Amino acid sequence: VSARIGRLVIAGVGLIGGSLALALRRAGAVAEIVGFGRDAERLQQAVAAGVLDRGETDPERALSGADVVVLGVPLGAVAGLMRQIGPHLPATAVLTDVGSAKASVVADVETALGGLPGGFVPAHPIAGTEKSGFEAALPDLFRRRRVILTPLASTEAAAEATVCDMWEACGAEVIRMGVEHHDRMLAATSHLPHLLAYGLVDTLARWDTTEEVFQYAAGGFRDFTRIASSDPVMWRDICLANRSAVLETLEHYRRDLDHLTALVEAAEGEALEAVFRRAKTIRDRYRPVFEK
Amino acid sequence: VSARIGRLVIAGVGLIGGSLALALRRAGAVAEIVGFGRDAERLQQAVAAGVLDRGETDPERALSGADVVVLGVPLGAVAGLMRQIGPHLPATAVLTDVGSAKASVVADVETALGGLPGGFVPAHPIAGTEKSGFEAALPDLFRRRRVILTPLASTEAAAEATVCDMWEACGAEVIRMGVEHHDRMLAATSHLPHLLAYGLVDTLARWDTTEEVFQYAAGGFRDFTRIASSDPVMWRDICLANRSAVLETLEHYRRDLDHLTALVEAAEGEALEAVFRRAKTIRDRYRPVFEK
Repeated sequence: VSARIGRLVIAGVGLIGGSLALALRRAGAVAEIVGFGRDAERLQQAVAAGVLDRGETDPERALSGADVVVLGVPLGAVAGLMRQIGPHLPATAVLTDVGSAKASVVADVETALGGLPGGFVPAHPIAGTEKSGFEAALPDLFRRRRVILTPLASTEAAAEATVCDMWEACGAEVIRMGVEHHDRMLAATSHLPHLLAYGLVDTLARWDTTEEVFQYAAGGFRDFTRIASSDPVMWRDICLANRSAVLETLEHYRRDLDHLTALVEAAEGEALEAVFRRAKTIRDRYRPVFEK
Repeated sequence: VSARIGRLVIAGVGLIGGSLALALRRAGAVAEIVGFGRDAERLQQAVAAGVLDRGETDPERALSGADVVVLGVPLGAVAGLMRQIGPHLPATAVLTDVGSAKASVVADVETALGGLPGGFVPAHPIAGTEKSGFEAALPDLFRRRRVILTPLASTEAAAEATVCDMWEACGAEVIRMGVEHHDRMLAATSHLPHLLAYGLVDTLARWDTTEEVFQYAAGGFRDFTRIASSDPVMWRDICLANRSAVLETLEHYRRDLDHLTALVEAAEGEALEAVFRRAKTIRDRYRPVFEK
């Protein structure tokens, strides 16, 4: 396989950026991988770990000659990062990101650059673990996972194709949808569950101050709360960046939870069973999608 | 190993009863396993599958000569089952159950028998999968899992020892606590998560009628909602049987969720991160307990 990307710059080398680097390197799909960040020591560790070819803390040096620039920082850091790298972004560079919410990234890029360049392709790889940092990076993290591109009216076809090829080289399946649609979908299937899981663990921690309750947790609790081990800063940023969609789905959920509570209170066994059965039917029907 | 139980009667041969049968048989801890149920054909299938030695649909024939009787039916069926088998229960038999809530079982047994026999030992193996039926039974289901006994003032020491030995023969760790304490603990760590997971899947199914939303569900959603594939009848029964404890923990959770919602609405990033961080700290601290 010939190197399809000459110089790739990853701004923010964490779990996602690191895994992207490992996957592209293994696929022979990139000639040079440059990391940009504030912490020279961390960048040096990523070089030593074989994740990066070199690390740069100076934006001009980092961005020089970049063919593709990937924003790998938490959503709350995108605006600041764009202000920093904007002036040094080569006119021909493809710019993409990995954020779990898209409208906020588009707004941040537009504000920083004073407009949306044709090379900008918003993207969201639906993959991750509850771990953080490039030390947890895996070359297979994106294999058979979906990557959602939300191309804009301003996005050039060639840039979109480059980003598409990049993710396919990592073994991912690339799909496309609109920014707003993406943000509503992800609020429902990812952001809300994280909020609920964090909330449950915190509720129990404050409810039972001896923490004895956690000693008796079974498999259901383990699976249900695994995502509460996710990075708090990343998820704070996601909840704020995608606030309106998260609030919309939260409102639906809370209304339904009020209804479920009323059914338990009134001991409405039949109605309760109907809800559970409907949920089980759906969950079982999509099992092949979820478990793949 | 000598057979420690002569004749074991399992009333309701599903995932738990079937797994108990397989585990005890493999451990050589039982001489004969009799299944009691309404469906002769199902019982015959369980015999053919090597789960039971024989099946009986007549309570007198089933209970005759029983040394240990295990109630393996969903909680909502315990009262009816006890009315049926009560008159045929040998005076010397040890009676135990596998219910996920204990107060309701104690009440059902007391009502059916007109009192609490010394041989009655309420028990709850904290194990299971989202699958149902003896076809899904596994001899290792209880290995390294906890079984909670909630012995009563009326419980005789010899009966308690028999039930303890039975579960230890399955590889389980037996612990003891009071009925009310058990029911509050389990409401928090098991019953509430199930209710929330069922609720989330149902909310999304009704919110997005095209079900497109489930196509983009990632690993977090998969884990978070796995328990929504659990048996709807069993969980309806648990929610009703443990209603007051479930409602108490639901009330805590809903209040905290209102607070979380307010934090998202007000874009209180710092406070949101503090909740997430507290939850992550706890979840990470108990990871060895959860993942074992």
